[in-house]
Amino acid sequence: MSYVLYYSPGAASMPVHWMLLEMGVPFDARLVDIDAGQQRDPEYLRLNPAGRVPTLVVDGVARHESAALLMLLAERHPEAGLAPAPGSAARAGWLEWMVYLANTLLPAMRDWFYAASDGDPAGAEAVRTLARRRIEEACARLDAHCAAGHDYLAGDRLSTADLLALVLLRWTRNMPRPATDWPHLTGYIQRLRALPSFIEVSAREQLTEWRNDA
Amino acid sequence: MSYVLYYSPGAASMPVHWMLLEMGVPFDARLVDIDAGQQRDPEYLRLNPAGRVPTLVVDGVARHESAALLMLLAERHPEAGLAPAPGSAARAGWLEWMVYLANTLLPAMRDWFYAASDGDPAGAEAVRTLARRRIEEACARLDAHCAAGHDYLAGDRLSTADLLALVLLRWTRNMPRPATDWPHLTGYIQRLRALPSFIEVSAREQLTEWRNDA
Ligand SMILES: N[C@@H](CCC(=O)N[C@@H](CS)C(=O)NCC(=O)O)C(=O)O
Ligand SMILES: N[C@@H](CCC(=O)N[C@@H](CS)C(=O)NCC(=O)O)C(=O)O
Repeated sequence: MSYVLYYSPGAASMPVHWMLLEMGVPFDARLVDIDAGQQRDPEYLRLNPAGRVPTLVVDGVARHESAALLMLLAERHPEAGLAPAPGSAARAGWLEWMVYLANTLLPAMRDWFYAASDGDPAGAEAVRTLARRRIEEACARLDAHCAAGHDYLAGDRLSTADLLALVLLRWTRNMPRPATDWPHLTGYIQRLRALPSFIEVSAREQLTEWRNDA
Repeated sequence: MSYVLYYSPGAASMPVHWMLLEMGVPFDARLVDIDAGQQRDPEYLRLNPAGRVPTLVVDGVARHESAALLMLLAERHPEAGLAPAPGSAARAGWLEWMVYLANTLLPAMRDWFYAASDGDPAGAEAVRTLARRRIEEACARLDAHCAAGHDYLAGDRLSTADLLALVLLRWTRNMPRPATDWPHLTGYIQRLRALPSFIEVSAREQLTEWRNDA
């Protein structure tokens, strides 16, 4: 099994990067400098025609979509236990969280950060207003889940849903109402940020913000 | 295994309804009249706090998110062959299509139809303009996939990705540029609409539009 991850610091590639480290699986990491526009280099577009990160080259084939990559890796490495096993009680809830994060929080984040370039800059303000509302609704929902006594999203242990959620929540750090503003969500965030694999991925991506010690 | 599907005609519940029929699995179907606001009845909100369809009650537990339900059903009924088996060559592509449809086309559709109620009506026009652009980009991408000689999205046979795609494409029928406007996509749409299970789900949901004979 060979993996090459194309990533940008703190981007949608981060949960995949984190997962590879958490599992202790060998991989190569290649930096795509989004600020420099490297995601639109012809060479990169051959790997990812949409010009996005992440791309994970799996045994020579380029694959995309962070949530799909997390699910694929969970399936290829069941011994890592980062997804409830098929047929187990927690499985349906895990699938539901993965899809919810992928189709509610992730697109709203895209809107928040890319409204002016994905669409008409004149309409960006309206798009961002709706995005903010949806992001805060998602934070409230995650907070309620934690308030109900759950330490993790799916079942009672760490899964890919937590990795995806945490990176998405990280993106709220400079928003009007950051995720850390919700009391139970803050506890969840701090617990996950304390994981050695989160500290490691933050270091490898040279992220200085949004660490428990920063 | 017991299933109770809460559905509304032609809504996000339709691919799940279709899949249950295609698999020949027994289930109960309960109509939620969205136009009458039944998705906000207190009784329904207990099953689905977001007030959305579908809800699928699986062995007594209410589950949500159409894409997650399709993946769950594929896993519970592997003999139906509606998802490439884990470890097979087509598996990664199937996961990628499922997530892509769930996090690109589906949220853009939500924006198109619900911009004025999910958000501020004053901003709805801008939200819908961006939604339309994204929906047409997704149609172009699906069209290119079909143009490359693929009869189905994942591998060379019908999967849940096709069921989800077709229902989402159906929603474009009254949009400025409907999916049937793309030449290769039209062939794909017609092929899938000819399936007995699609004809059956359309009949059960009393849909008269967007059939091969209508
Ligand atoms: N749905 C994709 C979204 C990927 C995405 O939007 N990535 C952003 C960074 S977080 C990106 O590549 N932006 C650069 C650009 O759009 O030019 C996924 O989850 O992988
Ligand atoms: N992400 C959800 C979306 C469900 C959804 O938006 N359903 C619409 C119908 S297509 C609905 O229930 N609308 C009623 C409302 O929002 O009041 C899924 O895929 O299941």
